[in-house]
Amino acid sequence: MQKTFTLKTDNHSDMINITVQLEQWIREENIKEGIIVVSSLHTTAGITVNENADPDVKSDMLMRLDEVYPWNHKEDRHVEGNTAAHLKTSTVGHAQTLIIQAGKLVLGTWQGVYFCEFDGPRQRKFHAIVLPAQHKNR
Amino acid sequence: MQKTFTLKTDNHSDMINITVQLEQWIREENIKEGIIVVSSLHTTAGITVNENADPDVKSDMLMRLDEVYPWNHKEDRHVEGNTAAHLKTSTVGHAQTLIIQAGKLVLGTWQGVYFCEFDGPRQRKFHAIVLPAQHKNR
Amino acid sequence: MQKTFTLKTDNHSDMINITVQLEQWIREENIKEGIIVVSSLHTTAGITVNENADPDVKSDMLMRLDEVYPWNHKEDRHVEGNTAAHLKTSTVGHAQTLIIQAGKLVLGTWQGVYFCEFDGPRQRKFHAIVLPAQHKNR
Repeated sequence: MQKTFTLKTDNHSDMINITVQLEQWIREENIKEGIIVVSSLHTTAGITVNENADPDVKSDMLMRLDEVYPWNHKEDRHVEGNTAAHLKTSTVGHAQTLIIQAGKLVLGTWQGVYFCEFDGPRQRKFHAIVLPAQHKNR
Repeated sequence: MQKTFTLKTDNHSDMINITVQLEQWIREENIKEGIIVVSSLHTTAGITVNENADPDVKSDMLMRLDEVYPWNHKEDRHVEGNTAAHLKTSTVGHAQTLIIQAGKLVLGTWQGVYFCEFDGPRQRKFHAIVLPAQHKNR
Repeated sequence: MQKTFTLKTDNHSDMINITVQLEQWIREENIKEGIIVVSSLHTTAGITVNENADPDVKSDMLMRLDEVYPWNHKEDRHVEGNTAAHLKTSTVGHAQTLIIQAGKLVLGTWQGVYFCEFDGPRQRKFHAIVLPAQHKNR
């Protein structure tokens, strides 16, 4: 089972919680046990798993990433000027693999799955595949 | 097959080699061919694959990560004050996927699998799933 | 299905596009639907997915990573002196998981898969496994 999801981001940098969307799809597909691979289809937007409670974590993370990879850099040669967004994407990862157990994502109390926009706002896409486990769970 | 592992970390930042534990579980489950996804259940601790020989690599890595993402930052808003640990987790990744061949992890000579503590010491958990390959290996 | 690939890198730092090689192998194995896990077998070389069009993105990324993790650091203790390469590897990831649909990698228009050399030039290896989906695609 594969599915392409679309979303519209609202800010230049943002982390959008997609956990509920993914879990809903897993329920629809009736997958009890297995993995799901979630992949951004862009080179300036990625996927990460991080804090789902205090929104200040997101804003701190985006602020700090911007410090490590500043938007403007006098030695950048890429004409689009968004090299920083490419670096942030490779840093958090273009994709994440999540585990499914008893029909739900295996996440810690504070973990959520995020689509990371690093050069928005834009219309974006991510793609997911579910691989069910082929055997009884012990 | 899925399993939750627990561990007690001893330091504020640390990389704990979990390769032997994972390979032992793969043996117990008698998996010859497939993949294993290993996921931290926390937002301030991750999983990475890196040097298993010289322990100085670990201490250098932790020291350098602390330089890139300093613990104290005057603009951080997250009240728990551990934004740096969240960033390190998304940088190394909350999870890694490893390949199994002939009953063992496919790792290079110097590669080991590490649980990365970034805000310890604490009681921690990681979760793993094994997906066996469903076909003959050529 | 598993396969070890070899390559010879030409520079100290480099990003080598391996997308075509991977897609060729997927065709040979006649996989229509599933995932492929691609893993570097080294601790100073990783795998990432990023821009396949403007080569300036690659050079900008390598230049910026070198700034975040400078080669020389007065506090490094690792005798080989390549701590920076270990950090870059854990940052981009030692491995990536890619989705296969209709016999091709599911990648956005600008996405390519890269072997990232951070301490070359060297003879290098990466290893891949394909896990076919076990069910009809809807």
